[in-house]
Amino acid sequence: MIGRLNHVAMAVPDLDAAASRYRDLLGARVSAPQALPEHGVTVVFVETGNSKIELMAPLGADSPIAGFVEKNPSGGVHHVCFEVADIAGAARRLIEGGARILGDGRPRTGAHGLPVLFLHPKDFDGVLIELEEAATTRHSPS
Amino acid sequence: MIGRLNHVAMAVPDLDAAASRYRDLLGARVSAPQALPEHGVTVVFVETGNSKIELMAPLGADSPIAGFVEKNPSGGVHHVCFEVADIAGAARRLIEGGARILGDGRPRTGAHGLPVLFLHPKDFDGVLIELEEAATTRHSPS
Repeated sequence: MIGRLNHVAMAVPDLDAAASRYRDLLGARVSAPQALPEHGVTVVFVETGNSKIELMAPLGADSPIAGFVEKNPSGGVHHVCFEVADIAGAARRLIEGGARILGDGRPRTGAHGLPVLFLHPKDFDGVLIELEEAATTRHSPS
Repeated sequence: MIGRLNHVAMAVPDLDAAASRYRDLLGARVSAPQALPEHGVTVVFVETGNSKIELMAPLGADSPIAGFVEKNPSGGVHHVCFEVADIAGAARRLIEGGARILGDGRPRTGAHGLPVLFLHPKDFDGVLIELEEAATTRHSPS
């Protein structure tokens, strides 16, 4: 079912400083910061060729990562995202297996404009997992 | 400098249970457990096609992840690993830039039998970063 590791999202307290470290110290290709007000974050993409890191800082008063940054003031890995070919089928299989989907249990539109869902970290070893119905794997066998 | 995202390592309290969840709930291809006594962990590899997840549980009395699992009893993301073509060059650039390499500051042989180093999480937004001199990218331009 799960396909490519689409990205690893890291919450950071200072986005410009984090982007500079990835660019200057680690020699990575990093994007310009991109504000996503409807998702409450500003992101910088770090390209690794096979996947990417998303550096995220809270944006606005109701950022969904504000609590995480408060609990982890230095930052940390916020979630990992896997691609799936059929997110509705994935949701059914997960719910039937006893896993909990955050929110109302239905896929919604994620930061990349594609259907996503988040799984309860307590069901996956303390790790917040995002599933994204990715265009690149949508037609591949699941 | 950094190339492919080689793996994301997650420390888990119960390796068999975690492997089952990835296989049965997420439909992933998972390896058999592999004991690495010289590294103090037992690992299961989850293949994602483009990269991999390493599920790790402590092995033996002096496991380097024992403290992490004690602090995070549900588990969590332990580190992310990027490939580099020239680890000695990477170490020089990082030290010159003010980043701290854990241990004695010199690459050592990692769990895959390749030279690795770990960077201080305080220098990278609370995230433990491993660099591995990977055979697949060793001869590519850095």
